[in-house]
Amino acid sequence: MEEIRVRSTSHSYIVSIGEKILSQLEQFLTEDYSRVLIITDETVADLYLDIVKNNIPKEKISSHIIPAGEQSKNIDAFYNLHTEALKNGLDRNSLIVALGGGVVGDLAGFAAATYMRGIDYIQVPTTILAHDSSVGGKVAINHELGKNMIGNFYPPRAVVFDVTTLQSLKDKDIRSGYAELIKEALIDDEAFFHSMLKTELNTLSNKQLQEHIMFGIKVKALIVEADEKESGVRKYLNLGHTLGHAIEAELGYGTLTHGEAIAIGLLFALHVSEDIYGVSLPFNDLYQWLEKNDYPLNTFQFNEDALINKMKSDKKTIDNTIQMVLLEKIGTPATKEINDQDLKNYLQSFNQRVVRE
Amino acid sequence: MEEIRVRSTSHSYIVSIGEKILSQLEQFLTEDYSRVLIITDETVADLYLDIVKNNIPKEKISSHIIPAGEQSKNIDAFYNLHTEALKNGLDRNSLIVALGGGVVGDLAGFAAATYMRGIDYIQVPTTILAHDSSVGGKVAINHELGKNMIGNFYPPRAVVFDVTTLQSLKDKDIRSGYAELIKEALIDDEAFFHSMLKTELNTLSNKQLQEHIMFGIKVKALIVEADEKESGVRKYLNLGHTLGHAIEAELGYGTLTHGEAIAIGLLFALHVSEDIYGVSLPFNDLYQWLEKNDYPLNTFQFNEDALINKMKSDKKTIDNTIQMVLLEKIGTPATKEINDQDLKNYLQSFNQRVVRE
Repeated sequence: MEEIRVRSTSHSYIVSIGEKILSQLEQFLTEDYSRVLIITDETVADLYLDIVKNNIPKEKISSHIIPAGEQSKNIDAFYNLHTEALKNGLDRNSLIVALGGGVVGDLAGFAAATYMRGIDYIQVPTTILAHDSSVGGKVAINHELGKNMIGNFYPPRAVVFDVTTLQSLKDKDIRSGYAELIKEALIDDEAFFHSMLKTELNTLSNKQLQEHIMFGIKVKALIVEADEKESGVRKYLNLGHTLGHAIEAELGYGTLTHGEAIAIGLLFALHVSEDIYGVSLPFNDLYQWLEKNDYPLNTFQFNEDALINKMKSDKKTIDNTIQMVLLEKIGTPATKEINDQDLKNYLQSFNQRVVRE
Repeated sequence: MEEIRVRSTSHSYIVSIGEKILSQLEQFLTEDYSRVLIITDETVADLYLDIVKNNIPKEKISSHIIPAGEQSKNIDAFYNLHTEALKNGLDRNSLIVALGGGVVGDLAGFAAATYMRGIDYIQVPTTILAHDSSVGGKVAINHELGKNMIGNFYPPRAVVFDVTTLQSLKDKDIRSGYAELIKEALIDDEAFFHSMLKTELNTLSNKQLQEHIMFGIKVKALIVEADEKESGVRKYLNLGHTLGHAIEAELGYGTLTHGEAIAIGLLFALHVSEDIYGVSLPFNDLYQWLEKNDYPLNTFQFNEDALINKMKSDKKTIDNTIQMVLLEKIGTPATKEINDQDLKNYLQSFNQRVVRE
């Protein structure tokens, strides 16, 4: 098992990554909690809920299962978690456990952040994608007018990442997670990026998987320690997300996985970066790797104005001007304001490039 | 104009108290905000919204009016504020202004705390009661199973208290505010408590009012600086609130004002304190002052078990045991766990005492 310490402004916490640690969850709890409420989704509950439950004293524990999928990150589900917490007698000395992927983590984390003005929670991610969302304390639900619009910065007390749970992932969820890993490599480390492009997702070994996840969490941890509330460098983690989020919103959440949409956003960020900084970036290498690993790229047929409209409700937008994260080169991200007309032109030229590739 | 600086864990802010400062609101803004959304209620909007609006550049400002009353502190109203903020183009560099009493402050503050994971807001209280809620950063909405159950600790960037707005208050709102001022005196200062009991609410001078509010804010500020997240001394501010909140919930929010319910809770805290600490406290003095100033005391006819049930969903409850704030003497608060049977006995003897007085 490996450990990474993350220093948040309010407290430090440990990210533990290892095999079969789900069945030893109690040893990762930092206090003697009065009650424990596990929040998970239907899919994860079938596979892992009992393992976790058996590890915590029966008289303390309760659980609540939400439907799987991004659609659960809504205001009603949020309110229902508060109802469950109240009905199960959680007090200020109780704990919420977020057992699942990013949706469960974001929703349960936001419930913990707001229950009686904030109680402890731990993240127990069961997807590759959640290596990213489980670290750093961003919790949120979606508004019908924008993704993650209602939320807090509220770091967990621990992150317990049992990589054996990743064996049950579907192909599209592996693709989804790897888009964020690729993003972290693009932000931070050119050599690691190129080594990742040698990976084939359908022949991934456990060793490779652990190595990539450790890398991703380390990149993430360093950035959130430097800038917890996203006033500076944390924005770089949104590489690929301006277009990615807009695509998700435009298609309706859940049509593509988050990472599949981000993958298209990463390509777009490379496309715009090449023009703005006059550099050559590995657009083609990334495109070919994504295509080889079955990322849905040719679904990219959108109305540019509709996308720009969606992008404007992005949280990085200031004074109605869209701010994109770009790359001066691999490992050197930067933010740049881009006006609507330029953006429209970039979307058009990107569309042609993707169709042509 | 007088100023009190409050040091929160994230930043310092100034509470400004003076006459006719509402029309100079812009000078209290700490930054050049991209947009300003004023949130207020119907009653306050009629009286003061234009004054505030005229003071901020037109192209930046928008406003949203909610129905007056505790009923507005609900999840739907919360979501609607996010909708308004998104529709009006608020970004991370925008400001929310909470113009009104405690309901507006709590609801608008919680919207600010969660909009794009937190933007700036300022409190512009227009009731006496809100001298308490506007300082210290407690923001929340109610859950149908408990008051203020969903919220954050999220301090404002400034508090601008124009006491001239208090002239439009109804009698019951003056009573409501004075219950919290009496509470602060009971917690902190015996001499001030006795001097307050010499006040007659229907002949209150502006000078007295300012003096009392300054005192209350100073007590509040010192306590929240020492314990922002209510793990210790901040609990003392809940003197009178265990029963007070239960009465509000049992009667339905809005039947009594918050302070009217707290007034009964303060008497109950004195009643229990006298027995537990074997001391003599000014129960009769306070009772008579409340009666003379038309606080509704004889409405106190409740089912004890129902009240105890409501008290158990209080946020101070740990492990299903009710924790009350009591007074060892005036100026010396303490917390005490009280078991259900004792509590029931106290409620019965209190009921007899109040009916008899």
